Amino acid sequence: MAMPAPLALSLGDPAGIGPELIAASWEQRDAAVLPPFFAVGGASLLASAAKARGLDIPVERIDSPAQAADVFPHALPVLGEIDAAWNPGNPDRDGARLALASLRTAAELTVSGAAAAIVTGPIAKALLAEVGFDYPGQTEFVAAASGVAAGDAVMMLAGPQLRTIPLTVHVALSQVPALITADLIRRRTRIAAAALQRDFGLASPRIAIAALNPHAGEHGRMGHEDSAVIAPAIAALVAEGFAVTGPHPADALFAPHARGDYDVALCMYHDQALIPIKALDFDAGVNVTLGLPIIRTSPDHGTAFAIAGTGKADPGATIAAIRMAGECATRRASYKVEAKFAS
Amino acid sequence: MAMPAPLALSLGDPAGIGPELIAASWEQRDAAVLPPFFAVGGASLLASAAKARGLDIPVERIDSPAQAADVFPHALPVLGEIDAAWNPGNPDRDGARLALASLRTAAELTVSGAAAAIVTGPIAKALLAEVGFDYPGQTEFVAAASGVAAGDAVMMLAGPQLRTIPLTVHVALSQVPALITADLIRRRTRIAAAALQRDFGLASPRIAIAALNPHAGEHGRMGHEDSAVIAPAIAALVAEGFAVTGPHPADALFAPHARGDYDVALCMYHDQALIPIKALDFDAGVNVTLGLPIIRTSPDHGTAFAIAGTGKADPGATIAAIRMAGECATRRASYKVEAKFAS
Repeated sequence: MAMPAPLALSLGDPAGIGPELIAASWEQRDAAVLPPFFAVGGASLLASAAKARGLDIPVERIDSPAQAADVFPHALPVLGEIDAAWNPGNPDRDGARLALASLRTAAELTVSGAAAAIVTGPIAKALLAEVGFDYPGQTEFVAAASGVAAGDAVMMLAGPQLRTIPLTVHVALSQVPALITADLIRRRTRIAAAALQRDFGLASPRIAIAALNPHAGEHGRMGHEDSAVIAPAIAALVAEGFAVTGPHPADALFAPHARGDYDVALCMYHDQALIPIKALDFDAGVNVTLGLPIIRTSPDHGTAFAIAGTGKADPGATIAAIRMAGECATRRASYKVEAKFAS
Repeated sequence: MAMPAPLALSLGDPAGIGPELIAASWEQRDAAVLPPFFAVGGASLLASAAKARGLDIPVERIDSPAQAADVFPHALPVLGEIDAAWNPGNPDRDGARLALASLRTAAELTVSGAAAAIVTGPIAKALLAEVGFDYPGQTEFVAAASGVAAGDAVMMLAGPQLRTIPLTVHVALSQVPALITADLIRRRTRIAAAALQRDFGLASPRIAIAALNPHAGEHGRMGHEDSAVIAPAIAALVAEGFAVTGPHPADALFAPHARGDYDVALCMYHDQALIPIKALDFDAGVNVTLGLPIIRTSPDHGTAFAIAGTGKADPGATIAAIRMAGECATRRASYKVEAKFAS
C-alpha cells in the first residue's frame, strides 16, 4: 500500500487565529499523534504567528504535496509562494485574497487526490465576499469544488461527548418549521448514515432525531410537526433499515444519560444542534462535511480577531479537526479496499 | 430572631420518584447540610419507598409545621394523615388525588408563612387534570395560590454551572417569534432582576439575553427580531439601569468561557433554555419560580415512572432544590430585615 497522501490545511483569514493554530498544532504533532499535513501558503506569516505564541518552529517551503511527509517530522511544510504580512486582529482585503487562494488550492489538491483531506481554517465570510467568494460558507464551497449540490453536503458538529447535525442552518427561526419536510429528513439521514459507515467506522450508525417542539409537541398540543412530519419520516427510515429513533424532546436528548444511546443527533435547526456541542465540547468541536467525495473538516470556531496574536487561542479544535480528517481518510481508504475485495 | 420556619415538600405523584427522593434527601440531611423540612402527607408510602431503596429511615407524623424542627434531626417529619398505598410505576387517580392534596396544603402553608418555602415534587399533569387540577403546570398553580398572575411568575432553571429563564415555555416553536415582544422581555427581566437581588444575593444581577435567530440574525439576514425587538428592549433595560447584555448568539452563550460573564441567561423559548441546563447540570437542576411572594423550588425532572422504586433515581436535584429553597428563604428574611432598618 502506498504512503497515504498528506492533509491540506487552508490558512483561514490570516488576521485571525487560524495561522497560529496551524503552527501550534504542528508543534504538538507527536504528542497529539497527528498525520502529516501541510499548510497552503503563508510561510512567513505562519513563522511570525508562531513566534508571537513563543513557538520557534521551522517552516519549510515545498513545491508539491508529495514532499510534505518527508518535511513534516522536522518542519511545518508550506506549499507554494502565496503569503502576506502578519497583522493579527486587522483583517483586510489582501488577507481575504490570501485566505481565498489558500482555500481554493487546498480544495483542488484534495479533489485531485494529491491531499488526503482538507482541513479549512476559519474565515470572515463578509470580507471574503468582497474579494469574490460567492458562497454562504466554506461547506458550500467545498461541496461545489467536489461536484456535490450544496443541499447534499451535510454539516456535522463532532466533539468528544456529542455529534450533532443541523437539518436547517443559516435561516431565521421563523422559517424553520416550513423547511422541515419528511423528504429533507430522509435524504440527510441517508447521507449521514452512509458517511458514518464509510468514514467513521460505524457499521449501523444510531441516529437520534430531535423534535421541533417542546416535549415533541405533546400529541399536537404544542405544534403538529413532530407527529405529522418528523415521526412519519422516522417510520419510513426505520422501514428502510436505518437505526433511527425519535422524535426526541430536544432538552432531554443531550442529558448525560441520554448521550450514550446514539452516535449522532439530527437536529431541526442551528441552535438546537450548536448549543449542546458548544456547551459541552467548545474547545474540541470539529465541523465535518458529510456526503462529499472528499474529506473535509474544520475547527468549529471563528476567526476570533479579538484574540489573534495574543496566544490565548486554544489549538484543541484544530488538532481535533486534523486528527479526525486523518482518521476519516484512513477509514475511507480501507473501506474502498474492502469494497474492492468484496466485488 | 425567631427560629426560621421549615420547608414544606409536596410528594409529587406517589407512583413516581418523588417520594423516594424525599426520603433519600432526608437521609442525607447532615452531609448535604439541609434545612429542616417536612413532607405533606404520605407517611406510610414514604416509609415503603425508603425501604425499597434500602433506607431504613424513621418517619414521624406531625400535626403542625412548628413541630418539624424538633423531629427533623431524628425522623422524617410528615404532616397530616393523607396517604396512599405505594405502587411505584403504576400511577392512578387515587395517587393523583394525593399528589394534588399534598401540593395544595404545602402551598397554603407557605402562603400563610407556616412554611418558609415550598419544594414541589414531580407530578403527571395529564393525570392531575383528571382529578380537577386546572393549571398548565405547578408554576401556574403556585402563582395563583399566592395571588400572582401566571404571566408574572418567572420560571428559572438553576444548576451549578448555569441559570436560564425561558421567556416562552409550552408553545409550538412556530408560535415563538410572534410571542417575543419588547414588553415581555422588559417585564420578565425586571421581575428576574428583583428576585435575584432579593433571593439570590446578587446586588446587580448580570442578565445575558439570548438572540432568537442564528448569529443574532446577522444584521437582519437571518430574521429581523433580534435587531427590531430584542435589541431595543435591551437598550431600554440598560437605560433603566439593569446590567443587561445581548442579544447574544445562543450557541456561543453557553460555551464554558462565556458562562462566567452573566448570572442568568434569558432565553427566547423552551429548548433554548433547557437544552444547555440539562446537558450541563442534569442531576442537579432546580426549577425556581421567581416573582412570587412565596419561595418555590422544584427538582427539574419528571415523575420518571419507569424507574420509580428501582433505586436508580438520583436525589441530587431534590437535594439541590431543598438547599436552594432554604438559602432563598434565609436571604429573603434578611433582605426584609435590612429593608426595615433602612426605612
